[in-house]
Amino acid sequence: MSPDEFRRAGYAVIDWIADYWATVEQRRVTPADPPGTVASALPTAPPTVGGEPVEAVLADLDSIVVPGLTHWQHPGFFGYFPANTSGPSILGDLVSSGLGVQGMLWATSPACTELETVLMDWLAHLLDLPRRFHSTGSGGGAIQDSASSATLVATLAALHRASRGRWRENGIDRRYRAYTSTHGHSSIEKAARIAGLGADGVRPIDVDPDSQALLPAALRAAIEADLAAGDIPAIVVATIGTTSTTAIDPVPEIGAICAEYGIWLHIDAAYAGSAAVCPELRWSHAGLEYADSYCFDPHKWLLTGFDCDAFWVADRAELVEALTVLPEFLRNAATESGAVIDYRDWQVPLGRRFRALKLWFVLRWYGVEGLRAHIRSGVALAARFAEQVRADDRFDVVAAHPFSLVCFRLRADDDTNAALLAEVNGSGRVHLTHTRVSGRYTLRLAVGAPQTTEAHIDEAWRLLSAAADNLPTP
Amino acid sequence: MSPDEFRRAGYAVIDWIADYWATVEQRRVTPADPPGTVASALPTAPPTVGGEPVEAVLADLDSIVVPGLTHWQHPGFFGYFPANTSGPSILGDLVSSGLGVQGMLWATSPACTELETVLMDWLAHLLDLPRRFHSTGSGGGAIQDSASSATLVATLAALHRASRGRWRENGIDRRYRAYTSTHGHSSIEKAARIAGLGADGVRPIDVDPDSQALLPAALRAAIEADLAAGDIPAIVVATIGTTSTTAIDPVPEIGAICAEYGIWLHIDAAYAGSAAVCPELRWSHAGLEYADSYCFDPHKWLLTGFDCDAFWVADRAELVEALTVLPEFLRNAATESGAVIDYRDWQVPLGRRFRALKLWFVLRWYGVEGLRAHIRSGVALAARFAEQVRADDRFDVVAAHPFSLVCFRLRADDDTNAALLAEVNGSGRVHLTHTRVSGRYTLRLAVGAPQTTEAHIDEAWRLLSAAADNLPTP
Repeated sequence: MSPDEFRRAGYAVIDWIADYWATVEQRRVTPADPPGTVASALPTAPPTVGGEPVEAVLADLDSIVVPGLTHWQHPGFFGYFPANTSGPSILGDLVSSGLGVQGMLWATSPACTELETVLMDWLAHLLDLPRRFHSTGSGGGAIQDSASSATLVATLAALHRASRGRWRENGIDRRYRAYTSTHGHSSIEKAARIAGLGADGVRPIDVDPDSQALLPAALRAAIEADLAAGDIPAIVVATIGTTSTTAIDPVPEIGAICAEYGIWLHIDAAYAGSAAVCPELRWSHAGLEYADSYCFDPHKWLLTGFDCDAFWVADRAELVEALTVLPEFLRNAATESGAVIDYRDWQVPLGRRFRALKLWFVLRWYGVEGLRAHIRSGVALAARFAEQVRADDRFDVVAAHPFSLVCFRLRADDDTNAALLAEVNGSGRVHLTHTRVSGRYTLRLAVGAPQTTEAHIDEAWRLLSAAADNLPTP
Repeated sequence: MSPDEFRRAGYAVIDWIADYWATVEQRRVTPADPPGTVASALPTAPPTVGGEPVEAVLADLDSIVVPGLTHWQHPGFFGYFPANTSGPSILGDLVSSGLGVQGMLWATSPACTELETVLMDWLAHLLDLPRRFHSTGSGGGAIQDSASSATLVATLAALHRASRGRWRENGIDRRYRAYTSTHGHSSIEKAARIAGLGADGVRPIDVDPDSQALLPAALRAAIEADLAAGDIPAIVVATIGTTSTTAIDPVPEIGAICAEYGIWLHIDAAYAGSAAVCPELRWSHAGLEYADSYCFDPHKWLLTGFDCDAFWVADRAELVEALTVLPEFLRNAATESGAVIDYRDWQVPLGRRFRALKLWFVLRWYGVEGLRAHIRSGVALAARFAEQVRADDRFDVVAAHPFSLVCFRLRADDDTNAALLAEVNGSGRVHLTHTRVSGRYTLRLAVGAPQTTEAHIDEAWRLLSAAADNLPTP
């Protein structure tokens, strides 16, 4: 494809995306077709001869693919946590695709590494993170694909530390333990399994039944029990904004325990970290000075497209020691000088995209104040929804909602709540998901799309209220 | 950013990329500035107020970022392995960014999963992979970010199998071993370290000094020695196209050994897998019917932008068992029906981009014949270069060049060869990298950019030949 062909086809794709964004609200949020609908509409083998114009592919996108999507950018999408993007993020990522450079080493594209280092410092400023995470000290940040990978590399660095270096050569040759609350994300168990600790290596710590936050006394007891059994506590993962309810673990107390026992403390703020751009929400980040590593996902609630997890460590040397492997074909003078960062040593894969570009585009388009306005809008819309739920005595709000997630349920049994969820999602106008809080089926409404307004919140509530009217009395 | 603002800014970015591609050849392939040049030209904190037009960011790209890049798409880029992209890939990825959907579960965006399943079958057709890898049987494919991650998930599935299921709960509670040749990629050691086997868990197997390929007898001896010591052989990673020299391990013999001992066989064809689109190069893939898993990188030599590693397993159930974790907040009817694929269980992270789109755009634009023409061009250009080297009795070609990589050196000591490399790279017209073959410093010239023509190959040779003239006699 020549530059001129690219220009012409590129305009067509830009138009297609602009039209998609302008009309997404008119679509069902989720498709209703059974499994196999999309696959059965496609050929079973690639074309022998190419040359199909981009317009033909766009037409198939319209007729086959888009009807089979769940529209995460729809203003009625309230499921899981948001994963919202924005125009500037799309364009920053487009530049990254167009340049097609590899940032695995500083030497393989210096600007790719240096812009990322600068942007991670910008984000650290934006969230007012402790100085120990800035690259100007002993720490620093890097973009990971997701919080799952951030938890994994934190676990690996923690094993390196807990083993006093023997893990690199010997692997898992004793029982190392990881700790997180019963509401810690599933990626913590997955990271432990990948790292060879096994599911048994993760100690689930009880939460306070009111706050759903980790109980420090239970953490201390679990650590003491493991030490008594001869096991080695390696890492504690505390969560700021759990996936179920956005509970906030008591990081100051947890941090003091980790410091006392010399255990790595990783903070998973995948969703709620973005809230710290607003000074009035920074109370949620108390205790961060205890953390050895911290991450949040700009791709969740900061208008930056997936994948973009921002991950920091307080001691970058420890992380690099844990992960570096230097074969001959990657040796170069810059690496050996020690004067540069090679981000391949901060992550699982070797290769890396130029992902700092989308953050750069987003921060320059919105500015600090624009991002604060986005967060405040989500918090206010969630508060509006919670008020409507509370004002209806058929419903309960079942957890605090400091951010943009509201957890609620009908005063009815689990099956009735599941039926309510299925009913409102079946409308195609909204999409909510569920969790369990204290064992009970609970609906979740998470706000994040920049197109979501009070009208969409009110529509969601009307649909829920009407569906509740029509459910068979339990 | 409104759809109309996006449209206007999007055209500007498309134009910028088209201009970059049209002029990239006029740039130095690699920058000459010292570390810190780019970082020091940028503000240390994000702007408080946003609203900067995209044109301002593009201007800073021109003045600050682009001069600090290594241009991987430059026709004079011959380093590492290629990582080339193309117009259709960029546009397919742009659609993915614009849609912003999450493909972690089938239910979170059915078309994202189904198009990927279909496209992985298309690629399996394209490479004529054994039927066991097609989704219509017990196998199937998924896109990973990189071959590093493919090796890691293969290692995890192998541990699950070798432990007869106890690894999931107990982790690494005995000594598992991985095997690869001394020319296996560094990501194999990294995967073993991440999985908790330690660097000691990887047994480096000697290669034949002529072919640089793994010696099956040495593999068998290493397995027997480990078994005698009570260790458990878990995985063999064979390489089709090693990073140093594109050596091809003898997969039929290795496969027979793996079958005999019940060891997982993973094939790393990260770079050379693309060659199998050409029937005349499929001899390089002999023995694939023995493999439990296989991967190659369309983002290296198949005109698809990073990240896009194509990974297949012969038994998808084994992989999913190894990696699945199902928390309440991800439970859904489709998953529980067993009728759908949830790709989160095929990879390390939970979230995933809609990466099948770029493959779809590439395959429809180039067609099978267009991709074959691209591979054949690379092979022919490498052969042309090798002829020029061979015709000069100051130089030796030091390994076979079945694909698009030529390894060569001056008949001189290592320091003189390193000086030669530094001299030609210093010209800014080309970029080559190095390796060691049988312990000796060796230059590598890898072809892959669609803009590379005979003229660029001839220029590279002229620069090398002239630099050799001017080196001090060793």
